[in-house]
Amino acid sequence: MLHGTCYDNLRYLCKHIGNRISGSEHAAKAVKWGEQAMKDAGADKVWLQPVLVPHWVRGKESMQIRYTPTGTYKPVPMLSLGNSVGTGGKVLKADIIMVKRFEELKAMPEESVKGKIVFFNYRFKQDLIQTGEGYGDAVKYRGGGPDAAIAKGAVGVIIRSVSTGADNYPHTGYTHYADSTHTIPAVAIGNLTADSLEKFCNLNTVSVQIQSECKMGTPQYVQSYNVIGEISGTEHPEEIIVVGGHLDSWDIGEGAHDDGTGIVQSMEVIRAFKALGIKPKRTIRAVLFMNEENGLRGGVAYADSALKKQEKHILAVETDAGGFSPRGFAFEISDEKRQKIMQYKSFFLPYGVYSFEKNGGGADISPLKKQDVPQCELLPDQQRYFDVHHTPNDVFENVNHRELKLGAVVLTQLIYLVSEQGL
Amino acid sequence: MLHGTCYDNLRYLCKHIGNRISGSEHAAKAVKWGEQAMKDAGADKVWLQPVLVPHWVRGKESMQIRYTPTGTYKPVPMLSLGNSVGTGGKVLKADIIMVKRFEELKAMPEESVKGKIVFFNYRFKQDLIQTGEGYGDAVKYRGGGPDAAIAKGAVGVIIRSVSTGADNYPHTGYTHYADSTHTIPAVAIGNLTADSLEKFCNLNTVSVQIQSECKMGTPQYVQSYNVIGEISGTEHPEEIIVVGGHLDSWDIGEGAHDDGTGIVQSMEVIRAFKALGIKPKRTIRAVLFMNEENGLRGGVAYADSALKKQEKHILAVETDAGGFSPRGFAFEISDEKRQKIMQYKSFFLPYGVYSFEKNGGGADISPLKKQDVPQCELLPDQQRYFDVHHTPNDVFENVNHRELKLGAVVLTQLIYLVSEQGL
Repeated sequence: MLHGTCYDNLRYLCKHIGNRISGSEHAAKAVKWGEQAMKDAGADKVWLQPVLVPHWVRGKESMQIRYTPTGTYKPVPMLSLGNSVGTGGKVLKADIIMVKRFEELKAMPEESVKGKIVFFNYRFKQDLIQTGEGYGDAVKYRGGGPDAAIAKGAVGVIIRSVSTGADNYPHTGYTHYADSTHTIPAVAIGNLTADSLEKFCNLNTVSVQIQSECKMGTPQYVQSYNVIGEISGTEHPEEIIVVGGHLDSWDIGEGAHDDGTGIVQSMEVIRAFKALGIKPKRTIRAVLFMNEENGLRGGVAYADSALKKQEKHILAVETDAGGFSPRGFAFEISDEKRQKIMQYKSFFLPYGVYSFEKNGGGADISPLKKQDVPQCELLPDQQRYFDVHHTPNDVFENVNHRELKLGAVVLTQLIYLVSEQGL
Repeated sequence: MLHGTCYDNLRYLCKHIGNRISGSEHAAKAVKWGEQAMKDAGADKVWLQPVLVPHWVRGKESMQIRYTPTGTYKPVPMLSLGNSVGTGGKVLKADIIMVKRFEELKAMPEESVKGKIVFFNYRFKQDLIQTGEGYGDAVKYRGGGPDAAIAKGAVGVIIRSVSTGADNYPHTGYTHYADSTHTIPAVAIGNLTADSLEKFCNLNTVSVQIQSECKMGTPQYVQSYNVIGEISGTEHPEEIIVVGGHLDSWDIGEGAHDDGTGIVQSMEVIRAFKALGIKPKRTIRAVLFMNEENGLRGGVAYADSALKKQEKHILAVETDAGGFSPRGFAFEISDEKRQKIMQYKSFFLPYGVYSFEKNGGGADISPLKKQDVPQCELLPDQQRYFDVHHTPNDVFENVNHRELKLGAVVLTQLIYLVSEQGL
């Protein structure tokens, strides 16, 4: 809380590199920065692990809505979903058909959807206290919206953003197509635009114009890297504890909470051991994974390498839920190991960390599951995360320095205990 | 979480009324607004309770620092402390003498302090996880700084703000003088200015110019009011549960977290009972207290009235620690009653409310202690509060709608349980 460098590291990442989608020049800069920052943190060894990543580019994009048949087209904030096709820069113009759920669309005759743009007006369930649950519920429309619309002959899809925000930021995020030869543009709008659209779709025919240039880049795949730093264990160097977040972000905002905070916290764990002069009994490794957002190729490459080298990971910890006040850890772990960790609970209570019962892990460490590596996820307070997640508003200013540092403190403590006691 | 009006109420209070120090026109507007908002919330009875409040006014103020003997004076952000005297608009110019603690000042010979401005460079202890503890520790310099400086013949006092902020906002707040005929101007500077000042005070003689107009207003006391709303109990109307926050704020920013959030949450409790059609067995009263910041006369008037009317309060709940994610309730209560409330713990865990063991209450309800009224305080997450507390940055935009509403949810639940089961 007094000497941590994670907040300063985050400022640099956000303000001097900025957003950093896989395959971009910014992502390449972030790798170089991460390598140096990991060295500065004091890791015994630092190396880059090759990952070939997809390269999607947004280009220019805009959308205009005509709310009434006699009205004019008015621009609204929008973002194409990640991995979406664009309109090739041309104007895609169509009437909107609004549905609230997949079931409603499925029940419609094809002729009432054909040639139109489907608006999935599905609301984030704000009455769920754990916003992660609301995200899991609503994100189905971001992932599955395009295919459902294609099946009915639609020419485009608009989703109400997967957002808890009382604002109008559109939220991007990964979508996909079952058949890559049959695709339609997919975009997201903010909650306030969606409210207007809902109102007018209930009154009359609403039309929309979309222009977008998004597509896979040239080349479609780019050489990139995971950044890895390690402190070797003194007694059981072969037993590895890994902690990580992801270095890539979406191509808007600054990727502050998603997942700049996880990156700088992971490096802070290394720094804290060094600053405190603690030589861990087991090996501690911090990993800045590449390509979490649109491919997970960094996570897969890491697990592949671990398998090939026959590495023994005793715990994998992910921090990718924002740099908010920590409240607990979730685990995907045997009951026996969970009980062992639960014995440490009293050490965490003074830090406001009380929840150890939930199940969870993280995307980047999930490929290690095949090797039976116990999974763990830092659980920060979740009320604000889906306000800023995948938006232009995910910026450094929205990260609180104490909340960020406190997350690093409790991560370090967990990893210290496991490095001393094993698991 | 879906139908609450507290966030909209807070927006109105912050954006259409703004800050509202006791005795000001804004405070009078806030009383009228509060009365109407309490009626809109559906209270059976709404009334105003007279409170005569002090009226302190800031006026214009500025401060310039000359960091080196040959340098020029440069303006820095500053705020006079509340209740401080000013310089009468004249320039107060003096050299600075920096001390870190009271003890250091006390040990100095009077001649080395006489005629100078004392800079109390005491840092908020950021390594304390509960920032309330850090506040309690550092605020001694805000309250006691002037008298300690006067005792050594100083002509003014500057304090490093009582602030967790990684920024340069100055924080105001109440100060006082033991002898009202012997006073000196007292101002606060932000953390970054304090860092510079520390650096240069260690190198050479630093001089400062202060100009300020703050003083007690004319008239010195103004008629104001607590705003009270009530739902009468159906079975034990004579047993009262009170929940409140304070309507006044400092005269800068918007008094959003301090304590607009407490005000709108207290009214939300009333609204929720009405919206849900719940007729409480015991009487529930929401109170918007006046003058918490510089006099506590609203809290005193409320307790005086309760005593005079022989009212029986079974629980007093205060929400005045910011509109952040709730984590628990603190109590000043008998063990027996605490055990009764602890039985409800499992109802709160799904909302992330887990801490019921701490001792606490609140300023506005503290005068009820003489009548042995059990005290209770909502405990929100505290990491961000002392970044914005008493600053121009305590604005609506820094309140998250879900965090605010969640606090109102758990307040309502606690009060519902006590209204049904007694205490």
